[in-house]
Amino acid sequence: MRIVLDAMGSDGRPVPDVAGGVMAAREWGDEIILVGPEEVVRAELAKHDTAGLSITVVHAPEVIDMHEHTDAVKRKRDASIRVGMRMVRDGQADAFVSAGNTAAVLASAIFDLGRIRGIKRPALATIYPVAPNPVLLLDNGATADCKPEYLLQFARMGVAYVERVWGIPTPRVGLVSNGEEPDKGNMLVRDTYALLARSGLNFVGNVEPKEVTRGAADVVLTDGFTGNVMLKTTEAIASFLFRFLRRELTGGPLNKVALVLLLPGLVAMLPGLALLVPSLRRVAKRLDYAEYGGALLMGVDGVVVIGHGRSSAKAVKNAVGQARRAVMGNVLEAVRAGAAQAVPEGEDEE
Amino acid sequence: MRIVLDAMGSDGRPVPDVAGGVMAAREWGDEIILVGPEEVVRAELAKHDTAGLSITVVHAPEVIDMHEHTDAVKRKRDASIRVGMRMVRDGQADAFVSAGNTAAVLASAIFDLGRIRGIKRPALATIYPVAPNPVLLLDNGATADCKPEYLLQFARMGVAYVERVWGIPTPRVGLVSNGEEPDKGNMLVRDTYALLARSGLNFVGNVEPKEVTRGAADVVLTDGFTGNVMLKTTEAIASFLFRFLRRELTGGPLNKVALVLLLPGLVAMLPGLALLVPSLRRVAKRLDYAEYGGALLMGVDGVVVIGHGRSSAKAVKNAVGQARRAVMGNVLEAVRAGAAQAVPEGEDEE
Repeated sequence: MRIVLDAMGSDGRPVPDVAGGVMAAREWGDEIILVGPEEVVRAELAKHDTAGLSITVVHAPEVIDMHEHTDAVKRKRDASIRVGMRMVRDGQADAFVSAGNTAAVLASAIFDLGRIRGIKRPALATIYPVAPNPVLLLDNGATADCKPEYLLQFARMGVAYVERVWGIPTPRVGLVSNGEEPDKGNMLVRDTYALLARSGLNFVGNVEPKEVTRGAADVVLTDGFTGNVMLKTTEAIASFLFRFLRRELTGGPLNKVALVLLLPGLVAMLPGLALLVPSLRRVAKRLDYAEYGGALLMGVDGVVVIGHGRSSAKAVKNAVGQARRAVMGNVLEAVRAGAAQAVPEGEDEE
Repeated sequence: MRIVLDAMGSDGRPVPDVAGGVMAAREWGDEIILVGPEEVVRAELAKHDTAGLSITVVHAPEVIDMHEHTDAVKRKRDASIRVGMRMVRDGQADAFVSAGNTAAVLASAIFDLGRIRGIKRPALATIYPVAPNPVLLLDNGATADCKPEYLLQFARMGVAYVERVWGIPTPRVGLVSNGEEPDKGNMLVRDTYALLARSGLNFVGNVEPKEVTRGAADVVLTDGFTGNVMLKTTEAIASFLFRFLRRELTGGPLNKVALVLLLPGLVAMLPGLALLVPSLRRVAKRLDYAEYGGALLMGVDGVVVIGHGRSSAKAVKNAVGQARRAVMGNVLEAVRAGAAQAVPEGEDEE
């Protein structure tokens, strides 16, 4: 498998991007094609031991910044994102991975790869981190304004992914709402509910956030605006709670005394804590976005994974992992086949 | 001050409702008017020591269930919610408080009190619990489908509340979005941004969830669907984290051994932990919705507070507290004055 990796994607580029690519090449033995300004990428790559790994560099002189507008994408034909995307289009690579500007990757994917016939809008699919079982949330930000038919298409794409990659037959599909009853939600949710109910999918109805965190559905559907706010709220709460606990527990002078008094206890607890390490690690892992790697951009005609801008090397490696699982599961084929079926005979594309 | 309290509101009615009313009467010395089926309410009230308190009972033979449709509200003219609402309308009470069916209270408020002239849709204003300073989030569920002008009206109402009740001059107004830049968001957010930017309000721009949890705005605006999902996500995450930690830490047989090994340490920690109690209590308090009481329904022509269906007596008492602060702060007058100004000369109501 050949995966093109944007060496100039993350905020800390090219450091975590290149390191993550090296980690991925070592872990899975895939061919990693680093795309970016050749000298910069080669200089960074030289810092790693790449003996026996299959890593190549493809030159892309231009770079798109985190805050650049999507029209920069059209202008900069030789940006790393665009060069990588064209390699996927031309069959020179199986997938493209970038921890760069989401809007730019999205724009380039639509521009250079195009949408799959029958899919009107793309969706970003992410693993929702706070549930007892894997939950695929989409859309988390590709299409902020949705129509019911878009959400139905997202549902079919999500189901294809979960079947192919997670091996779950007839995944449960839930629709994010502010109440479980079919008449709850905004207009979009109520209309989508009706469409999903007669879609033939395993639709379990509306799900409130607490049901999502209890794993009540395998595929959780929502428009890109709500999905993004929901995901960012989740991240914000988790980080707030840890911050708040730390500040409260180490804040006042009384607490400083308390912490000193706690010391002998903590020492006595060491053997017990050591046994708990695997559990504590599972808790931390659960909330660490780096474990998930990124979001799969669905609906465009190629496998594209977008990582977090703040990606570490591990996060970049896991984004590559996500791309390879999508390739191995043949998710694209499944989405293409499903979408083609869903397009009524003779209907024109929008 | 006279506050009508729905004795048949909460899931556990009339127990927490009556107990919360008694607590409120004792704490603030206000007159509490319990509304509900007289015999039921009096029987419950008899379990409390009400000597010296100003508590009266007003008979309302009908009750609206948690899952009843809003048309039940029209039909049941003598339901506790409707009787209480009419007392506010007729000046027999200063505010109405219920931990009942939100949709029913909302419908009754619009039906019996009417909207304030110049306010097209009502909004539920809640204290967002996860921030270093008080943050007023609205709408959290009254109006799922919004137009930009509704959000502008919500902003003015939220500002009136924060100025009057929290005493913050020219509160900072933030708009929930999936990115800080003015071009981020869905269509509603982008159009609302433009409206807020020239509103004369202290508009600080788009706020992502992480900014909200950092207290970047005093008034946080969003449509009722997104606000409700955001608030419910917040509650779900906090409860998931505690559940997950507990399960992980007490789960396997190895962890059981670990906990036994931890015991001597915990004993040694007791003096230190005792000193930390106030801090730990602050953390727990922060996440306890019972501390906040409920949501203020803004835009209707009367002070109405809707509590959580799962309210405890303390939550009911705090909902009464929220109503009395709104009355004392003369929030309704401020909203009426602001809204009247905003209605252009001669414009007809929708």
